[in-house]
Amino acid sequence: MLTLWGNLESGNVYKVRLLWGWLGLPHRRIDVDQTRGEPATPAFRAVNPIGKVPAVRLEDGRVLGESGAILQFFANGTPYWPADPWEQAEVLRWMFFEQYSHEPAIAVNRYLRRFVAERSAFDEERLRHNHPRGERALDVMEARLAGHDWLVGEGPTIADIALYAYTRVADEGGFDLAPRPGIGRWLARMEALPGYFPMRQETAVEVLEFPS
Amino acid sequence: MLTLWGNLESGNVYKVRLLWGWLGLPHRRIDVDQTRGEPATPAFRAVNPIGKVPAVRLEDGRVLGESGAILQFFANGTPYWPADPWEQAEVLRWMFFEQYSHEPAIAVNRYLRRFVAERSAFDEERLRHNHPRGERALDVMEARLAGHDWLVGEGPTIADIALYAYTRVADEGGFDLAPRPGIGRWLARMEALPGYFPMRQETAVEVLEFPS
Repeated sequence: MLTLWGNLESGNVYKVRLLWGWLGLPHRRIDVDQTRGEPATPAFRAVNPIGKVPAVRLEDGRVLGESGAILQFFANGTPYWPADPWEQAEVLRWMFFEQYSHEPAIAVNRYLRRFVAERSAFDEERLRHNHPRGERALDVMEARLAGHDWLVGEGPTIADIALYAYTRVADEGGFDLAPRPGIGRWLARMEALPGYFPMRQETAVEVLEFPS
Repeated sequence: MLTLWGNLESGNVYKVRLLWGWLGLPHRRIDVDQTRGEPATPAFRAVNPIGKVPAVRLEDGRVLGESGAILQFFANGTPYWPADPWEQAEVLRWMFFEQYSHEPAIAVNRYLRRFVAERSAFDEERLRHNHPRGERALDVMEARLAGHDWLVGEGPTIADIALYAYTRVADEGGFDLAPRPGIGRWLARMEALPGYFPMRQETAVEVLEFPS
């Protein structure tokens, strides 16, 4: 069975879990918690040298990190990673946009607001610095989704999974989706797909404590 | 002919130029300069809504953004984007690592130190915040390159291009590569490949002013 290191509060972990939900792939989960600093420990760096969740272990023992790479690996050969070269590039365009321009503003502000009990002056500056960047990232998504059902092509892909995770909880980072109806309809479309489940719902057949 | 929006100081633009050098693809360049704020202008956002260089226009008029997506599109069907699914995932793992854990520390500190004339207190805090993150990213690279010639498999891929660009100028961000001999040998290996040229060398057959 597949093994996943991560927790139920991480959007990056959720991306992998949601694709596996779509694909009907069962997994066991080893609970690794950012708020306890576990990803940065030597024990976890022995699994994934960059010290970040998610990481996955295949049945043959190989380990893969980076949510975007994991999504592409498991979607390869399915419609969620299209066969057309231009559509592949468009999928990656959205996924790199998410990791570089969306997540560092929206997910980081959510993390600072939700999980950091005593924010420093630097944290407060980061919140202010990130906010307009997150707004702009949401505007870029809205410009696409105002007139299209999906980010790429005519059906859902791993680009939609990659953007869904933290867009869905953007309000926890202080971002308002109400003035962006295209995003709102797209969120509902994602949530109507077979295999969908919300981020904090457990889907592992077994949960182990870290390290295990 | 291919059109590229960007400048000679951007590592993200260099990645695309270097792959095109390897592939022998000629291009014209429209000079878009971050230090003049041009990527964020409405004129450039009409080309690339996220307001960042590089962007490229194919001969049929289609436009693509995000260096990682552009690299994958042009490498598709060449050895620089391997056919093996596991190696594809490993290439993307390094490329997402670069955009999420390497570039935001190393390239941002280079930008703050080299191109921001009057740094604010917040900029100084960012430099301090980013420095250990960049060191760690370089350590992750060194762990691989101490024992392997290339980041993935037995030959150069777009993962090597993606990591080369800002690693090569990491010293401008305050990072010391001397204690990392694996990275040093890999840089030399990259620079010995046919089609190689340094970042600031002009390779466009024509350069136009922005907007054009």
